[in-house]
Amino acid sequence: MKIHLITIGDEILIGQTLNTNAAFIGEKLTDIQAKVISTTVVGDSREAIINAVDNAFNSEAEMILLTGGLGPTHDDITKKCLVEYFETTYVKDEETLQNIKAIFARRGREVTQANQDQALVPECATILKNSEGTAPGLWFEKNNKILVSMPGVPFEMKSILTNEVIPRIIEIRPPKNECIKIKNILTTGIPESTLFERIGDIEEFSGHTKMAFLPNQYGVKLRLTTKGKDESEALNNQTEVEQRIRALAGRYIFGTNDENIEDVVGRLLIDRDLTISVAESCTGGLISARLTDVSGSSSYFERAMVTYSNGAKVEHLQVDEDFIHQYGAVSLEVARQMAEGVRAISGTDIGIAASGIMGPTGDTPGKPVGLVYIGLCDEKICTAKEFRFNGTRKRNKERTSQAALEMLRRHLLGIPYDE
Amino acid sequence: MKIHLITIGDEILIGQTLNTNAAFIGEKLTDIQAKVISTTVVGDSREAIINAVDNAFNSEAEMILLTGGLGPTHDDITKKCLVEYFETTYVKDEETLQNIKAIFARRGREVTQANQDQALVPECATILKNSEGTAPGLWFEKNNKILVSMPGVPFEMKSILTNEVIPRIIEIRPPKNECIKIKNILTTGIPESTLFERIGDIEEFSGHTKMAFLPNQYGVKLRLTTKGKDESEALNNQTEVEQRIRALAGRYIFGTNDENIEDVVGRLLIDRDLTISVAESCTGGLISARLTDVSGSSSYFERAMVTYSNGAKVEHLQVDEDFIHQYGAVSLEVARQMAEGVRAISGTDIGIAASGIMGPTGDTPGKPVGLVYIGLCDEKICTAKEFRFNGTRKRNKERTSQAALEMLRRHLLGIPYDE
Repeated sequence: MKIHLITIGDEILIGQTLNTNAAFIGEKLTDIQAKVISTTVVGDSREAIINAVDNAFNSEAEMILLTGGLGPTHDDITKKCLVEYFETTYVKDEETLQNIKAIFARRGREVTQANQDQALVPECATILKNSEGTAPGLWFEKNNKILVSMPGVPFEMKSILTNEVIPRIIEIRPPKNECIKIKNILTTGIPESTLFERIGDIEEFSGHTKMAFLPNQYGVKLRLTTKGKDESEALNNQTEVEQRIRALAGRYIFGTNDENIEDVVGRLLIDRDLTISVAESCTGGLISARLTDVSGSSSYFERAMVTYSNGAKVEHLQVDEDFIHQYGAVSLEVARQMAEGVRAISGTDIGIAASGIMGPTGDTPGKPVGLVYIGLCDEKICTAKEFRFNGTRKRNKERTSQAALEMLRRHLLGIPYDE
Repeated sequence: MKIHLITIGDEILIGQTLNTNAAFIGEKLTDIQAKVISTTVVGDSREAIINAVDNAFNSEAEMILLTGGLGPTHDDITKKCLVEYFETTYVKDEETLQNIKAIFARRGREVTQANQDQALVPECATILKNSEGTAPGLWFEKNNKILVSMPGVPFEMKSILTNEVIPRIIEIRPPKNECIKIKNILTTGIPESTLFERIGDIEEFSGHTKMAFLPNQYGVKLRLTTKGKDESEALNNQTEVEQRIRALAGRYIFGTNDENIEDVVGRLLIDRDLTISVAESCTGGLISARLTDVSGSSSYFERAMVTYSNGAKVEHLQVDEDFIHQYGAVSLEVARQMAEGVRAISGTDIGIAASGIMGPTGDTPGKPVGLVYIGLCDEKICTAKEFRFNGTRKRNKERTSQAALEMLRRHLLGIPYDE
């Protein structure tokens, strides 16, 4: 079933409201193998709504879903537009009126005329019950296509979509002999283009899986969309592709789906019964803030020292003052000593540290903005690595925190961090 | 200027990614009186992209903005589609190539072929510099209409939109005879409904200003949209409304427009020539990470101790072990002592501290999830306050960090923190 989604509302166009309805609908429809082929957002204007509906009816879409503009106030004009478009008239729907009265009774309020009018529905429409609010969903059929209009209030839309629309779609178009599985493979520490060179176009390798490269500040997400004739085949196909990707770029993969790297290192620390402490300069507490975003992190995260000033580095982390003078606070040696110092003072198994120049100012000759050193020490090794990032201050902090957590992950798994 | 926005990406259609780009673009264009009349989302398919572009060219839109599909991998096909649509060919853009090489050089990496190919641009396009990444923006003109293609990576799109596209739109279509001014008044520490009770519907007070209440985890943003016949009248009208709002809820207002509270307290600390240190337990470094997001923060931020364990609290912050036993680590007294301790050890003018239960576990009888104590000490006072939040672990951390920074702001300005 090919579906065209139309969401109505000025607040979406002017960016005051995120279109979370479109995301919810897209996800739910994908689950039942229906395909949103396009989404259109238009404002609360008669012409725009009628145009969008007409365009959708003339597209390849088999079904058109509308959200928004069914409320009781003057700017809610969707129902009026649909009565005009389908050349129909209004009738009173007794069941809807009872629902409206019941809702107002529960709230202990009088039913207003505007709300009573919500029981006036287009004559040619099938009424879809709204168990969460006063505006019912409306189901139209014309030229072998279906149009469904739902309120824009998210929980009302969700209720009608889930309880009324989706069961009807499944009935009309029962799931094909095909199953689609989506999985995200999460990588970090490798640019999109380098990753692409390693993995190539996975579709050439496998006819059943599509892959998209989705970069963000923490790395590149690989989204696999795999087909199979049933769930077991789809999962087998996906495993086959995932194994190939892991063979080609395994060391850069830190997790799957919605995981964060802090969740992954948290699990590894718990599994290995290890504790950690952090010394932060340039990241200003961000590495620790991310580590402690994980519920249960108090079992492995012991403490952090955010030593912004050189004095604090010397005082708390026993960094050698002469080293700071000789190499500068942003240096391999100081990062190493910071990691060593925080580990020693905290008595943890591992210490990690970051020192760098986040910008936009603070660079010196030979030490540009984006230069970062990350140190890592445990009872056996004490090392540091240089990184170079390229972004705004905030972006550089995010990337530095990600690199530190990735360096920790690789260390815990014994994977070399070679670039 | 009527603008049609096309965002490209399967991940948006299937609901994996929220269309935050559309919201950002809508907001920025509204600010300069351009009007997004419609947004279309299509998948990564040649036919869908070309169709959407063609429909937009045949609509009333004067300008078409595209985001997405400009990356270096096989699923990035926007540039190819545009070369086909505009019947043009590729040329190498030397400036783009230098930008790509410079980015890779800063990262200390080899330029891959896929990235070199990003310097191949449509011959008929004007190139818009991408200062955050490798894919430049592309500006086309045809039949008196403009089409601009930008990358989908949000921070790259934002950079090109803000620095390249918006100044050009303003030049082509200078603001009309009616002036619309948008201003955000940022509040924190007061719920939306209480704020509404204080301020009421500002439209009843003034015909020229619309106001929206936009709550987020850091507070409630009041968005004022004010009209005037020219800029000066619009600004006067807006000032009148703003003064009224400040009279009714002034103490809760920490800033305006895109400011963060960390920017505001940073300025206040610089103005007063004061330094600060932080002791964090439940926030795990987030307060410090936010303070150090501000460029120049090293002039007032000295250090932070993220003392997750009780041992670290006693050791570094001289918190009385007996107090921890008697009152618990999450208590008014311990928060006060943490603030006092970090101030003493750092030698800063001010010390702030947070201790609380962020959830989802960790609650004890009488100490529910969301209970937080924030301490603040300077040379004259040493105080702590209790807060109760109600959200996920991450949300509770964000709210705690906001409350700590607001407590600091009020302290610096001498405004009582009475609720």
